[in-house]
Amino acid sequence: MAEAGVEILCVGTELLLGDILNGNARWIAERLAGLGLPHYRQTVVGDNRQRLAAAAREASGRCRVLITTGGLGPTPDDLTTESLAAAFETPLEERPELWDEIQANLSAGGRAVAPSNRRQAFLPRGAAVLPNPLGSAPGMIWSPLPDFTILTFPGVPSEMRAMFEATAEPWLRRHGGATGVFVSRLLRFSGIGESNLAEQVADLLEGVNPTVAPYASLGDVKLRLTACGSSAESAAALLDPVEAELRRRTAQHCYGTTDDSLASVVLALLQRSGQTLSVAESCTGGGLGAALTAVPGSSAVFAGGVIAYSNAVKQQLLDVPAELLERHGAVSDPVVAAMAEGARQRLGTDWSIAVSGIAGPGGGTDEKPVGLVHLAVSGPDGCEATAERFGDRRGRGAVQQLTVIRALDRLRRRLLAQS
Amino acid sequence: MAEAGVEILCVGTELLLGDILNGNARWIAERLAGLGLPHYRQTVVGDNRQRLAAAAREASGRCRVLITTGGLGPTPDDLTTESLAAAFETPLEERPELWDEIQANLSAGGRAVAPSNRRQAFLPRGAAVLPNPLGSAPGMIWSPLPDFTILTFPGVPSEMRAMFEATAEPWLRRHGGATGVFVSRLLRFSGIGESNLAEQVADLLEGVNPTVAPYASLGDVKLRLTACGSSAESAAALLDPVEAELRRRTAQHCYGTTDDSLASVVLALLQRSGQTLSVAESCTGGGLGAALTAVPGSSAVFAGGVIAYSNAVKQQLLDVPAELLERHGAVSDPVVAAMAEGARQRLGTDWSIAVSGIAGPGGGTDEKPVGLVHLAVSGPDGCEATAERFGDRRGRGAVQQLTVIRALDRLRRRLLAQS
Repeated sequence: MAEAGVEILCVGTELLLGDILNGNARWIAERLAGLGLPHYRQTVVGDNRQRLAAAAREASGRCRVLITTGGLGPTPDDLTTESLAAAFETPLEERPELWDEIQANLSAGGRAVAPSNRRQAFLPRGAAVLPNPLGSAPGMIWSPLPDFTILTFPGVPSEMRAMFEATAEPWLRRHGGATGVFVSRLLRFSGIGESNLAEQVADLLEGVNPTVAPYASLGDVKLRLTACGSSAESAAALLDPVEAELRRRTAQHCYGTTDDSLASVVLALLQRSGQTLSVAESCTGGGLGAALTAVPGSSAVFAGGVIAYSNAVKQQLLDVPAELLERHGAVSDPVVAAMAEGARQRLGTDWSIAVSGIAGPGGGTDEKPVGLVHLAVSGPDGCEATAERFGDRRGRGAVQQLTVIRALDRLRRRLLAQS
Repeated sequence: MAEAGVEILCVGTELLLGDILNGNARWIAERLAGLGLPHYRQTVVGDNRQRLAAAAREASGRCRVLITTGGLGPTPDDLTTESLAAAFETPLEERPELWDEIQANLSAGGRAVAPSNRRQAFLPRGAAVLPNPLGSAPGMIWSPLPDFTILTFPGVPSEMRAMFEATAEPWLRRHGGATGVFVSRLLRFSGIGESNLAEQVADLLEGVNPTVAPYASLGDVKLRLTACGSSAESAAALLDPVEAELRRRTAQHCYGTTDDSLASVVLALLQRSGQTLSVAESCTGGGLGAALTAVPGSSAVFAGGVIAYSNAVKQQLLDVPAELLERHGAVSDPVVAAMAEGARQRLGTDWSIAVSGIAGPGGGTDEKPVGLVHLAVSGPDGCEATAERFGDRRGRGAVQQLTVIRALDRLRRRLLAQS
């Protein structure tokens, strides 16, 4: 009945209360992907004997390896080891050598040995110790059933990671049942919606090795390419032609890969040509500058800018003529063009981006509704202004975020056209 | 057999690959805790028909309400609706009114309607639409079995949250099986760590009705107060004295409640006194202005500012003397004070905040390490500059975010002292 593969079972009432993010599951999942181990399910239960045991028994019918996190500490609500023993009707036994080690570990870490730590020296009969070099809570490697092994880890991320890397990863390489090495790559897109992109590459989404899968979040569309090979090199070699075909079909819509952002791509293009950038922001209020300066090393290209939220600041720090503001209003092509020119002049940069819009929820009119944003990009080859309409339903934060994305994408396309 | 309670089923291969943190599960779990609904299990499966259907059938034997996230988009790997229909052997039906709405939503958002969006208009027979005010992917509220209801949400966090608050939360209050009416309130803190706060209010954390629980994320500490009563009024009445006692003990560390942010509190204080604000940002690159302009109506108080990322901009747009920059360096009390004064003069505001620091990962020295940030607040009663050390381990984004929080908190305390 059991599929091949690994499941993760995270134990902790704090996860069920929403107190903390499940960073352990993400970290282990990423490692399993890197090991090429199929991983089909994650489960979270609280510090509860029955539910923990039930989840482990269910997993034993589905997978070959179950990785648990949490519940290995010395307190009464740390129940993982005893619940797993109960789930598979196996007695707990004290391991004297483990008790020595726990005492030594605690003393070496300058911590007191409490009587409750002794609980941590009990493991189910037949289980091997999974050593914890950083803390007092050891884990175990235990096969309660044929072809089903449980690996337990504490919930403290640093201890879990150290134990995983030192002991579990080598064990999983040998016993995890991987049928190869998986390599994964993201392609990132701008200026095209998820459904349109999926239609353009529909045939490639049907592929088996590599697989191609689309993901979308606000203003951001991605394709994940995943290949399996006998080595990392052979897996990567399977990805290359598919990536090339995807790039060919989507042309400039594809702006980068895994670690790129629109800001990092724009900054890299400018750095390559030795050019500099400034911004003039109204409706984004600094969000454009924040996106650019989120990138390490941005100071080589980005000089700064003006947050021209009020009209007075637009006039005073960006030299936008009062007459333009009066005639066209602050949300207009002529005004954003003047803002961009003003920033470029005042800050002495090669390029500048200016944005002005109605982020909402108030301030909209029939003629200029919430979600209307004007953008301008000014550079050595001139200034272009244009309007975008993001609609009045998505909320203020989304209009601001989409404005930042669209503005950076406009500059990116101008820079590509230039080069 | 079914226990009362709610389970969460998150659908997405990206979760199983470790690409993203499961922030949706944490957010929903926190909401369920606030609603007083028991929540014993979370499950994650990939974009796979069989495994999704199996997980849903299993949940139907354990819980009354299953909340799913993800897999509602238009692409072929969005399988949630059809897999749930198959799991409970119910045919899908097209809902013409839903198709109209999806088209209207896409058009209002300025997006193209793709033929694949039509898939999103199909729901299992008997299911009600769970409207999505922000996106094209609607959810559903469906009871495939007696005493078992599924609520589906898209994976995009902003859409999921808006739908949850608008439709699911009221539904869960009525039908979730909570024994009484739960009312929840957050108190928000700044300038005090989670453990110190917990120690100061340790006795209140032991309370049963209301419960008080601490939560912490980067630079942000909260206490969640939850009371259960026979009506919302009686529950709220239980919260009031505990909130008053918490506020008395924590004094100015408590800056607001559920819907407040440091920025919204600062803007409200300024609006009350009819005063205005500007910013001068170096290391945050616009993040301070973005935090302020995230608040609707901020234009009544916030004039704008200067992103003075380069020293030339500090001199030219903020009148920082070259001599100061040379003598003290850009990351120093004298320079942030001059930046704040410059912004206040140039933008003609009553108050201004200036920040300059080393966000990293590069640029640190022994004397001025990564994580060192200087802040200045200038107002009618003078200018105060100070240094903060956020350390070199947290990363660039965290230093920038902590700088924004600390700067706003300094202004908040100055404004409280003034009033």
